[in-house]
Amino acid sequence: MTAPGSVGIVTPKTMRFDAPLALASGASFASYELLYETYGELNAARSNAVLVCHALNASHHVAGSYEGEEKSLGWWDNMVGPGKPVDTNRFFVIGVNNPGSCFGSTGPMSIDPASGRRYGSRFPVVTVEDWVNVQARLADRLGIERFAAVMGGSLGGMQALSWALQYPQRIAHCVAIATTPKLTAQNIAFNDVARTAIQNDPDFHGGDFYEYGVKPRRGLGVARMIGHITYLSGADMAEKFGRMLRHQDYGYSFGIEFEVESYLRYQGDKFADYFDANTYLLITRALDYFDPARACGGDLVQALARAEAKFFLASFTTDWRFAPARSREIVEALIANHRDVTYAEVDAPHGHDAFLMDDPRYHRAVAAYFDRIAREVRA
Amino acid sequence: MTAPGSVGIVTPKTMRFDAPLALASGASFASYELLYETYGELNAARSNAVLVCHALNASHHVAGSYEGEEKSLGWWDNMVGPGKPVDTNRFFVIGVNNPGSCFGSTGPMSIDPASGRRYGSRFPVVTVEDWVNVQARLADRLGIERFAAVMGGSLGGMQALSWALQYPQRIAHCVAIATTPKLTAQNIAFNDVARTAIQNDPDFHGGDFYEYGVKPRRGLGVARMIGHITYLSGADMAEKFGRMLRHQDYGYSFGIEFEVESYLRYQGDKFADYFDANTYLLITRALDYFDPARACGGDLVQALARAEAKFFLASFTTDWRFAPARSREIVEALIANHRDVTYAEVDAPHGHDAFLMDDPRYHRAVAAYFDRIAREVRA
Repeated sequence: MTAPGSVGIVTPKTMRFDAPLALASGASFASYELLYETYGELNAARSNAVLVCHALNASHHVAGSYEGEEKSLGWWDNMVGPGKPVDTNRFFVIGVNNPGSCFGSTGPMSIDPASGRRYGSRFPVVTVEDWVNVQARLADRLGIERFAAVMGGSLGGMQALSWALQYPQRIAHCVAIATTPKLTAQNIAFNDVARTAIQNDPDFHGGDFYEYGVKPRRGLGVARMIGHITYLSGADMAEKFGRMLRHQDYGYSFGIEFEVESYLRYQGDKFADYFDANTYLLITRALDYFDPARACGGDLVQALARAEAKFFLASFTTDWRFAPARSREIVEALIANHRDVTYAEVDAPHGHDAFLMDDPRYHRAVAAYFDRIAREVRA
Repeated sequence: MTAPGSVGIVTPKTMRFDAPLALASGASFASYELLYETYGELNAARSNAVLVCHALNASHHVAGSYEGEEKSLGWWDNMVGPGKPVDTNRFFVIGVNNPGSCFGSTGPMSIDPASGRRYGSRFPVVTVEDWVNVQARLADRLGIERFAAVMGGSLGGMQALSWALQYPQRIAHCVAIATTPKLTAQNIAFNDVARTAIQNDPDFHGGDFYEYGVKPRRGLGVARMIGHITYLSGADMAEKFGRMLRHQDYGYSFGIEFEVESYLRYQGDKFADYFDANTYLLITRALDYFDPARACGGDLVQALARAEAKFFLASFTTDWRFAPARSREIVEALIANHRDVTYAEVDAPHGHDAFLMDDPRYHRAVAAYFDRIAREVRA
């Protein structure tokens, strides 16, 4: 039915929640909808479920494709599928779109039932902790008491970490890749420049641009260009683009002269086509706020003491956004707590984006770890 | 007359050039004016002149202060003055504002004599090589056949290097600090995002905003925020700001929450007050284009073969914009050419901006090198 290695054609599902949900900010959702997808089969013991958490510009669509849409491959299809590192022949894998995102779950573009208008600027600020609470409710409804693993990369890795702290008994393994226990000043600075570019765009209208029939495309484009630079390594950009020109010689203009400019502007434009500006603000703010050690006066060892899961962490040598040292902080704090932790520091050229790439050493490490999880599930 | 260590009160001078100047782009200036300052006295042999070249947001105002303007200290006052590393008791130091800049020399805000309107978008694209030609004409008019040294940091260092290649017999020493033989793809990418932010601002009007009585302040602010992040080291930002909040707790907003956001937005605003958007485009483009090895098929050794000067280079360990490895490329290419080269790699926390700081080890190295130059001048 499915091609080898692919989960094949998939269809997202919608689940509606009518019980109010309190958020970290003090605001609350009266009701909300979640889009999610599942791959593989939940076993009779309901013990083989793996939750995959998404990062900034991804969604519930982790693996497979949509009927009739050739270019609709899931964002982590190289990781999740039959015979893949997260093997859907053994695991029941769930991808869920977080509220605030722009891919189908309740977000700034949704109609606020209280006003009958799109949320826009009135959508509440959400945190990693809020998302984990939302995901836990979805698990309740799906009848999953405890996940074999919660996994994610970057912001997704923060959610996996937060699961281990918010619901220590509901997660057997935490798989956190290319992540950090908190953003640095430089990380926050890049986010803030991106947000400023969006807020500056006259088409943003304070977040209520939907009502004007416009979209802050230029601001979103600049935000994406900045983000994109931080996702790639300098060496990777040098290798891919170097100083290659679009034309034979310098044109002495402020248009596109270098290939890297063409690439970045194209990425910015493409992003502006499909992404929502309010979502960009919301998700970068959730990144800024994540700091589980904050409640413990900055002491990460103390913060992680409540975790009961076993941990797998991976980082990538050329990732300067969330450098290996940031993963090592987590590893060291876990070791100080005598937790079971596996750590892979992968020599890879692709910077932060390496976590999405099909790197054999990286994937072998993840596959080996999920083999171990599968043995525990069977046991 | 002057306080110890300071050149004291200074006054800029203007020089007008009426002979046409051909530019790298094929365009030309029919005439132009330069603002410049001088400190110290030219000796009888006219052999003690030092030219200081400025980087992106600096000018001819290198040292001293303006009468009645308390906060008008020159941008490299810690480097240039009596008893300072570049000792004005021994050297005749010249600072000159490059055309295209916005501090008094002919630039986009100037009136184009051909049209009677401000140049705006019609100001020609200028290169490092063009600036060096302009500076050489100024030297001619000042009766300086040969500089004891041409020096600069960052983009200023590129001009010093280019002097050694364009006028090999007119420069005894090239002092190039925190510089690079060419921008990387990542460097160009950051410049392009900054330019895009400016070009996107509706108040930019394609570069002719002067005629509309507006200024693309928001675009300039974002450009400066991006630039500023690249001038500082991650460690320095962590030290200065960390995750410090403006208020006691998270405000769950997209306003200013973290101190680093407040700092960056303030820097952006301040920059938008005094800087010109067209100048930002022009100067970042000059940075992009600089690549003296390009004419030699990328072979820097071959490109530097024509240099006859002696060289001093310095770089800073935490500079990730123009990292020490970039200076080392130049040093190695000079050594391959059997040139006399001194290189200091300074362990400093301040990133790219370290070249402007009053770092004792850095300043001692520059002072020692200028002692040597002074001995040669006397000999």
